[in-house]
Amino acid sequence: MNIVLLSGGSGKRLWPLSNDIRSKQFIKIFKAENGAYESMVQRVYRQIKTVDKDATVTIATSKTQVSTIHNQLGEDIGISVEPCRRDTFPAIALATAYLHDIQGVSLEESVVVCPVDPYVEDDYFEALKALGEQAAKGEANLVLMGIEPTYPSEKYGYIIPAAAEQISTVDTFREKPGAETAKSYISQGALWNGGVFAYKLKYVLDKAHELIGFTDYADLFDKYDTLTKISFDYAVVEKEPNIQVMRFAGEWKDLGTWNTLTEAMSEPVLGNAILNDACANVNVVNELNVPIVCMGLHDVVVSASPEGILVSDKEQSSYIKPYVDQIDQQIMFAEKSWGSFRVLDVEDGSLTIKVTFNPGHGMNYHSHQRRDEIWNVISGEGVVIVDGMEQPVRAEDVITMQAGCRHMVTAVTELKMIEVQLGKEISVNDKKKYDREY
Amino acid sequence: MNIVLLSGGSGKRLWPLSNDIRSKQFIKIFKAENGAYESMVQRVYRQIKTVDKDATVTIATSKTQVSTIHNQLGEDIGISVEPCRRDTFPAIALATAYLHDIQGVSLEESVVVCPVDPYVEDDYFEALKALGEQAAKGEANLVLMGIEPTYPSEKYGYIIPAAAEQISTVDTFREKPGAETAKSYISQGALWNGGVFAYKLKYVLDKAHELIGFTDYADLFDKYDTLTKISFDYAVVEKEPNIQVMRFAGEWKDLGTWNTLTEAMSEPVLGNAILNDACANVNVVNELNVPIVCMGLHDVVVSASPEGILVSDKEQSSYIKPYVDQIDQQIMFAEKSWGSFRVLDVEDGSLTIKVTFNPGHGMNYHSHQRRDEIWNVISGEGVVIVDGMEQPVRAEDVITMQAGCRHMVTAVTELKMIEVQLGKEISVNDKKKYDREY
Repeated sequence: MNIVLLSGGSGKRLWPLSNDIRSKQFIKIFKAENGAYESMVQRVYRQIKTVDKDATVTIATSKTQVSTIHNQLGEDIGISVEPCRRDTFPAIALATAYLHDIQGVSLEESVVVCPVDPYVEDDYFEALKALGEQAAKGEANLVLMGIEPTYPSEKYGYIIPAAAEQISTVDTFREKPGAETAKSYISQGALWNGGVFAYKLKYVLDKAHELIGFTDYADLFDKYDTLTKISFDYAVVEKEPNIQVMRFAGEWKDLGTWNTLTEAMSEPVLGNAILNDACANVNVVNELNVPIVCMGLHDVVVSASPEGILVSDKEQSSYIKPYVDQIDQQIMFAEKSWGSFRVLDVEDGSLTIKVTFNPGHGMNYHSHQRRDEIWNVISGEGVVIVDGMEQPVRAEDVITMQAGCRHMVTAVTELKMIEVQLGKEISVNDKKKYDREY
Repeated sequence: MNIVLLSGGSGKRLWPLSNDIRSKQFIKIFKAENGAYESMVQRVYRQIKTVDKDATVTIATSKTQVSTIHNQLGEDIGISVEPCRRDTFPAIALATAYLHDIQGVSLEESVVVCPVDPYVEDDYFEALKALGEQAAKGEANLVLMGIEPTYPSEKYGYIIPAAAEQISTVDTFREKPGAETAKSYISQGALWNGGVFAYKLKYVLDKAHELIGFTDYADLFDKYDTLTKISFDYAVVEKEPNIQVMRFAGEWKDLGTWNTLTEAMSEPVLGNAILNDACANVNVVNELNVPIVCMGLHDVVVSASPEGILVSDKEQSSYIKPYVDQIDQQIMFAEKSWGSFRVLDVEDGSLTIKVTFNPGHGMNYHSHQRRDEIWNVISGEGVVIVDGMEQPVRAEDVITMQAGCRHMVTAVTELKMIEVQLGKEISVNDKKKYDREY
């Protein structure tokens, strides 16, 4: 099976766990069988490999997610990197060209496209495999997965099949309806559109050439920022008369909001929290190292991270985005392939952060024009270069760097430091990079 | 008026704002007329001085509160320092001896005793003054304030007066009753006992000499730790036949729990918070510098500090103590007369804190046996002495101190530093003090 997972943008609907640089699909919130916690993307990848160990998995995403994906899934994963965001048609066109030109997938092979964040059981991936096999038959140009609705949701588009069989041609599509209309659709046998479909590689590559002028993957990649934003549904699906739908009746959840995410949590509490007996249907996800005490709450989700604290009625949690969009503060933490950082203190004239480097990683040679920095190494071992002078460092070493001074560090073991930045105009943009050769 | 304010212990019923070293009465949570925030003790002191600018105010408290009291009320306030906690009879005896021997209050003058944390209007303090004047008449040995009940509370003891007049003798006392019994007491004209009373200084001094063998204030102070814990109610009030009660019908609240505290807040939100329109009867007190977002909550209090996060139904908030008692973590922040500190990061082998010194303050000359320290000065100016070497410091200076090294710092202007402690056994007890002369 060739599968393309669409890994969307940052999104704030799971704030404070997700922020501008940490997407929900990378938050380790699900308890796997071995007791460790895994992220949405790790869970989905594990499930795909369980169903089809030879599956070729490609993640279509922006470059900001590349290091996190390698960090969570290893180096073998295929990544179709979008140089910028241009909606799903350009993204799927680029991933398809990537599969053909870089991964050597033939024109006749089928490709399955799926969002990266469904919360499903293994039968869902069995269904994806069947979807790909159906597409390979060539009976239709596109084969959609139609999810058997469990309630008249207003959140999803509906697919009206021509017949009640497991596989059928599609009569028509309906946009997200009101609850009453949704009921009527369901009584007519409509299925949810979960954004999952399969096609022969040739079909989408031809569509891409038809709609975008490009020679090959490299060319498409180069001109990606000139492409018009357009969705795959609008550019392709709505114009294609020859579409089949395959029914899926298994469990399926879209983990887009806190309400649905908490339903998928195997334990009500993740992190340091105390709930009294008067609490009912309460979930807590606490990434801080101080406790959360909950008393007498009903149907509430509480989440705390270095970014902030959410306390929400579960139903209301789907409306947080405009409120979170009001928040104007710097990024307070991030986890990257090289390690992580967390802002500890913000003052007018100084910024104190904790930086952890994974072994073998570090920061590139750079300088700042308008701030001095002090590194307080608190654990581990590494090598520091300051203005061309190399020196080993370990816990208790202090390195002071004036503005303009070039510096870099590479961790030998896991290396942790408290970095104190001092200056009147501290900004992430105040950074000049240099070649490592000095 | 001579007034003794009993300032109780730490208490965790307002966690996470109060902790083992920060008592609720010192939290700046009330908006004063000038727009600044004041604490319970500041509010009460200001009100007393408004009603009687010549009032002699003495706070009976433990030594751990002395610096905070001076910090909040200035140096003129009288403080009767209890060397250790011995319940209210020894505390009132000590404060009475302090008034006589140190403040020069005569045996015939009256003294009013009142808790430090009532939330009341100025008419309450007018009533305290009248209480003192009544005690000075000598008609009874004790004059209690009886608060007109507003509902059949189970939280208070009841006073049954002999008559319905403004001032009456007391028939009897009733312990905290059930709601039904409380109703019946109220129908009989009972009054709440708010722990407020007045007496002639001589009366309590004589009782103290009768029950405790001591010569004067200094002697009582010296043997304070040998005294038996006993309440004033039990030792004196319950045995005294000649007691009057004076009615008080004004507004009176006991701010002992989050539920009652939030009723006294002039604004629903203190600190950084966003509430959506679906929230009703929600209070937020946020001492962190990251936002709290509340969605669709009803009758809930949310509070966050460096100690932790409380999310509680308001009714349930009176039951937090046993849950908070379970929390076993180091003190994460404190405000003192010399300044403040906050723990920023805790690692196995290191502790990073932010320390702010007020001008003219600092830390005494000391050393640590089992940890090194690094001071990163981030703002202000001061003077550091390390192993006898004195040097001025300012923002950007870094001082490194090996274990065993003697060090101290004095702030010239407000001085802020990031202190990184490094060692395998970091403990507040690892501290050896030295005379300033070296």
